[in-house]
Formats: sequence, C-alpha cells, structure tokens
Amino acid sequence: MSNPSILILPGDGIGPEVMTEVKKVISWFGAKRDIQFDVSEDLVGGAAYDAHGTPLHDDTMARAQEVDAVLLGAVGGPKYDELDFSVKPERGLLRLRKEMDLFSNLRPAQCFDALADFSSLKKDVVAGLDIMIVRELTSGIYFGEPRGIFEEGNERVGINTQRYTESEIDRVARSAFELAMRRGKKLCSMEKANVMESGILWREVVTEVAKDYPEVALSHMYADAGAMQLCRWPKQFDVIVTDNLFGDLLSDAAAMLTGSLGMLPSASLGAPMANGRPKALYEPVHGSAPDIAGQGKANPIACILSFAMALRYSFDLGSEADRVEAAVETALANGARTADLLGEEGATPISTSEMGDVIVAAL
Amino acid sequence: MSNPSILILPGDGIGPEVMTEVKKVISWFGAKRDIQFDVSEDLVGGAAYDAHGTPLHDDTMARAQEVDAVLLGAVGGPKYDELDFSVKPERGLLRLRKEMDLFSNLRPAQCFDALADFSSLKKDVVAGLDIMIVRELTSGIYFGEPRGIFEEGNERVGINTQRYTESEIDRVARSAFELAMRRGKKLCSMEKANVMESGILWREVVTEVAKDYPEVALSHMYADAGAMQLCRWPKQFDVIVTDNLFGDLLSDAAAMLTGSLGMLPSASLGAPMANGRPKALYEPVHGSAPDIAGQGKANPIACILSFAMALRYSFDLGSEADRVEAAVETALANGARTADLLGEEGATPISTSEMGDVIVAAL
Ligand SMILES: CC(C)[C@H](C(=O)O)[C@@H](O)C(=O)O
Ligand SMILES: CC(C)[C@H](C(=O)O)[C@@H](O)C(=O)O
Repeated sequence: MSNPSILILPGDGIGPEVMTEVKKVISWFGAKRDIQFDVSEDLVGGAAYDAHGTPLHDDTMARAQEVDAVLLGAVGGPKYDELDFSVKPERGLLRLRKEMDLFSNLRPAQCFDALADFSSLKKDVVAGLDIMIVRELTSGIYFGEPRGIFEEGNERVGINTQRYTESEIDRVARSAFELAMRRGKKLCSMEKANVMESGILWREVVTEVAKDYPEVALSHMYADAGAMQLCRWPKQFDVIVTDNLFGDLLSDAAAMLTGSLGMLPSASLGAPMANGRPKALYEPVHGSAPDIAGQGKANPIACILSFAMALRYSFDLGSEADRVEAAVETALANGARTADLLGEEGATPISTSEMGDVIVAAL
Repeated sequence: MSNPSILILPGDGIGPEVMTEVKKVISWFGAKRDIQFDVSEDLVGGAAYDAHGTPLHDDTMARAQEVDAVLLGAVGGPKYDELDFSVKPERGLLRLRKEMDLFSNLRPAQCFDALADFSSLKKDVVAGLDIMIVRELTSGIYFGEPRGIFEEGNERVGINTQRYTESEIDRVARSAFELAMRRGKKLCSMEKANVMESGILWREVVTEVAKDYPEVALSHMYADAGAMQLCRWPKQFDVIVTDNLFGDLLSDAAAMLTGSLGMLPSASLGAPMANGRPKALYEPVHGSAPDIAGQGKANPIACILSFAMALRYSFDLGSEADRVEAAVETALANGARTADLLGEEGATPISTSEMGDVIVAAL
C-alpha cells in the first residue's frame, strides 16, 4: 500500500513560515515513528496569482482532489487588494472548499491553560473553555446565485443570495450531531429564523435530524443572541452548528475570546472518498497576517495543530494526534512563547522556527 | 403650536414594565420642567397579535407615521414560537422599521463606570468604552426578494436575498459620517467584500461618501475581523457603520461586552418629516426577556435612556437628554442595582419600579 498523501499549500503572508514548522513535525513522524507521508507542495492565493494569474491553478485543484489531505497556510494580503474579485486570493480557497465539497468546517475554540490570562475576557470566563463550532462551508450566501453588481434604473445594486437546500442542512447537521455524540452531547444550532426563511428551514431540518440522535440535547438560538452568549458565558456551549456566514463571524469571535487565536486549527471535511477517508483540508483559523510576514514572528502552533487534526480525522492516528497536542502543551508549559503570546509586557519572544523546534523536541 | 407627539408601544415580555418607568420620566418633564408631550399608547408584537391577529394593526402603523417619535419596549416570546412567520411578533417591529423607512439605527455600546467590573471582559478592556454602531435597518437580507421556502426537485430550499442599492448605502454612510464628525472623527466600515459583491459595492460607496468628510478617518474591515477586534480591543473604534445583518450580530456582541446590556438604548432614524424632525423609533437593545417578565426584575434603564435619545434626536432637547443620562449615572453611583446588575454575588436588588423612582428622584 502506498503512503498516505498530503498536499501542502503554504499560501501567502505568514503561511509559508508556519508551514515550514509543520514540515519539521511531518519529518519527525517519518524519522522517529516510521509514519511516512507522500508530501507534495504547490501554490494558492496571491502566490498562485503571482505565478499563474489565477489564485488556484487547475492542476493544483486536480491534485487537491486526489490527495488524502490538504494542509493550507493562509491566503490574502494588501498587495492583492486591488485585484478583480474573480482572481482575489480568497477565491482560491473558496474554490478548494467548493469543488472538494468540504461542507463541514470544524473550528474548535479552546482556551489553553497556559494562556488563560491572555484573553481579553476574565480568567474564570475562559479558563478550561473547549467548544467546537461546526460551520457549513460550501453553500449559503458565499456561493448562492444570483450574485453580482447590476445596473438598476440610474444606479447599481449589489446582490448576494443565501440559499440552503434540505440536504445541505441535513448533512452538516449530521456531522455536528456525530461530533456532539463524541463530546458533551449538547448541540446548539444558530440562525435567524425570526427574520429569514432560510433560517426557518435550517431549524426545521436540524430538529428533524435530532430524532436520529436522541441522546444529544439540542437547543436553538438566534445568531445575534448567540454572539452575545459567546461573549457572556461561552462555557454554556459544547458543539455549535451554524451556516457559512454566521459561522464566519461567530467562530472568529469565539477564537479571539479564548486568547489563543494563534493556536487554533480547523478541519474542513467532505464526503468519504473511495478509500474511506473524507475529503479534507486543514488550516489555521488565523489569517495571513501580512504585517508580520517574513519576520519570523508568527506562531506556528495553529498550523501544527491543524496537522494534528489531519492525523485524527484523515489518517485515523488519534493517539499520534494526542502526541502532537501534548507536545504543544509541554512547550507552552515550559514557557515557550512567540510574540503574539506575550502581550505588551516585555519578556523576549522566541521565533517561529524556535517554537517549531521546541515542539519537535517535546515530541 | 401643539405639543410634540409620542406613540408608546410597550410590546411583549418586560416591555410594559420598563415602559411604565419611562412614563414616570415623561410625567416628570411635564410637571417639573413644563415640557409637555402628547402621549398615546398602542399594541405591537405578540400583544397586538393576541388582540387583533396581526403583530401590527394598520391603525397603529398609520399613527406611527404621524407622530414625532415612537417609543418601543420589546417584542417576542416563546408563546409565539409556533406562529406562522408572517404574523410573528418580530414582523410588527420589522414593518415599523420598513414603512417608516428608518434606515439608520444608532446603537451605542458604552460601558458605565459603575459597571466596569460587571463585564465578562477585563476591566481595562472595557472601562470608559464609548463606541457607536450605525446599522443599516431597512434593507439587506432582512427585506430582499426573492425570499421564502420553495420546492426544488425532490426537496425544499430556503432562500433570502442580500440586496443593497448605491443610494441605500449612501444615505446610511452619510448618517454615520455625520455622527463621526460630532464624535471622534473616526469611522470603520464593516462588510465581507472579500466574499460578497454586495460588500464590494458597500465599500465603494462608503469610500466615495468619505470625500465629503475629509476630516473623518475612514477604515474598512471584514466583518469577521470586526467581530474579533470588538472582542479583543473595542476601544480602537469610535463609529462603526455596517449592514443590517452584520449590524444585528456585531451590535449585540458589543452590547454584551460592555457588561451594560440592560442599559443600552437605540435610536432608529429616517428622513426628515415636514416639521424638520426625522422619523424616529427608540427602543432598548435588550429583548423581551420572557423568563423574567412580570416579576418586577427588569432593568428599565435602557428604555429610559432610549427616551433620552428621543429628547436629543427628535426634540432637540440635548441638555434635557444630558439631564436624564446624568440622573441614571447618579442612581448607579449611589448603588441602585436591579438584579441584572448584581451577578451571582448576593446584595439585594431593587425592583424595576424602584429603579424608575430613584432615577426620577435624581432628576
Ligand atoms: C479568507 C476568507 C474567504 C475566509 C471566509 O470568509 O470564509 C476566512 O475569513 C475564513 O473564515 O476562513
Ligand atoms: C427582534 C429582531 C427582529 C431584531 C432584529 O433582528 O433586527 C432584534 O434582534 C434587533 O436587533 O433589533
């Protein structure tokens, strides 16, 4: 049997730097645990645009469809702000999500003990926090038609369409219920059913799916109330399921609240392939951070933990994933801190590459 | 000249209770300052549905169009959860906003000194916070067509449409720039121009309007990053302008962050009427809180401060508005606390009506 395959797409900004550290972890597994991967690497986002005039080359897209897992760094940057919408770096990422049909985006919002003081929230509000946001990733207003800027009378009008079919809601709801079963058996679904018909359908379908998961306690919340409750007392949640756009805002807010933004990974999963593995893309929650790119200041932990998620969800190597996560905890407990984990208070940060080395050593 | 007119719509849940306290304040102005208002009262939301089978009677709608200001308590409650979408309590409020064309929704997120400890955020993050979110209120996905739940093949699909014309963006942007001129001269516009064409048009129009306000420093932020930054360091903002749906989530998150949710008023303003006053509706940011309704536990301050906003924006009585706000500060400084301002820690709260009395006494 051939080795499992990984396509690495470092992308823009700090993407390449943090990905270099992930490659150290991958090499460690090859050398010390004899777990080998077929690793290939390619361009995405602004980097792909610079090389090919498109944020995702068709060959890269085809390769992404074949591999067992894609690891992505980050896309975007001010350099590309003036580009036409159709070739912006983000379109590369959105095309990957859509064509790989990665409908279930898992975004843990977790507060690392060593960092509980670092949140803008009070320590008792976030210490020990561990929730999972499941965001629908291939439909809704991100992809609905009609969309565009049109002439209408004497002026222009900007249009986007929120669109969810029953089966689209059903499948992401199921993935959230499955996760809830393996966690605290509590699921909160968020929409604006009081204002949007798509929210009404969302609520209906989620309620229907719940019948197959009688052990999971399901609740519903309007997304604005959800934003409030995340800020007030996030520990009331276990798993949250929501649509593409609400998930974008709510998961970013939740990530920031943990104080661990540079630490948070994500997994985007699709349907099982012929080999039984789900189509999958793993990426840090943080963005390309162009302001610190190329300076060795970036925190590689989110990207390394994204690889840990790949071990767990794509390669069925749960205990190896635990090992990576434990190594990160050890590094932090021993005081390893990149600049983002130090605030204003002095103390010298270590570099991206030093953090990678410390984590590999802890493995 | 006749007295300025106010239509009071207490609505559902704690709405009637908090509005009773506002009426005390209105009476105080009549008795002690000889400032008289023609006050009428009517039903909205579930209360209107119970009486008339519709969440807003046509007569009430017509009256709202005529008066100088509408004061609204809150709408909604679990009792109405099973109602058809078209007659849900929220439809009454949305009809008022739409038919009065109240396009500019002002939502201050302010942290009251006496309550800085009460936020889930650290004190230094929120103490002294005073930002204003301007939310577009009559367009976007709340009202765009097509909308509904349709059959498509073998399944149903839920559809809503985000739709913004240049003139809709222009007018709300202008109202935000005007506000910024009277405040810190800093405006941040939030959208998802990296994903939505309606966001691209939004950014373009706001940038164009900025040319008429060269003194205001304009910045743009993606709404997900905006949610993050509000949670991280809200004091970086002065005025924020955003669309209907993003404004719904972001303003609720911001309100909760201040720790002063029961304290926050809002003003929804339209175009000037024949008498020069803008069409206007004032309401607290908090909802109908059905769990504590009828128990005398609700905090009437948000509703009283909404009346203060009416004094300022509808009746040009800025110094009288200051007087009400100062009375609230005095009451708080003297230790007056409704249950929501006490947390779990003991200390006996005062009732809704006692809080109203303390504030009137402080006037
Ligand atoms: C980069 C951008 C297109 C993307 C999104 O809006 O989904 C990002 O914000 C995210 O959350 O992954
Ligand atoms: C009650 C509801 C229709 C309303 C909204 O979504 O606008 C509320 O959440 C608000 O923010 O005023």
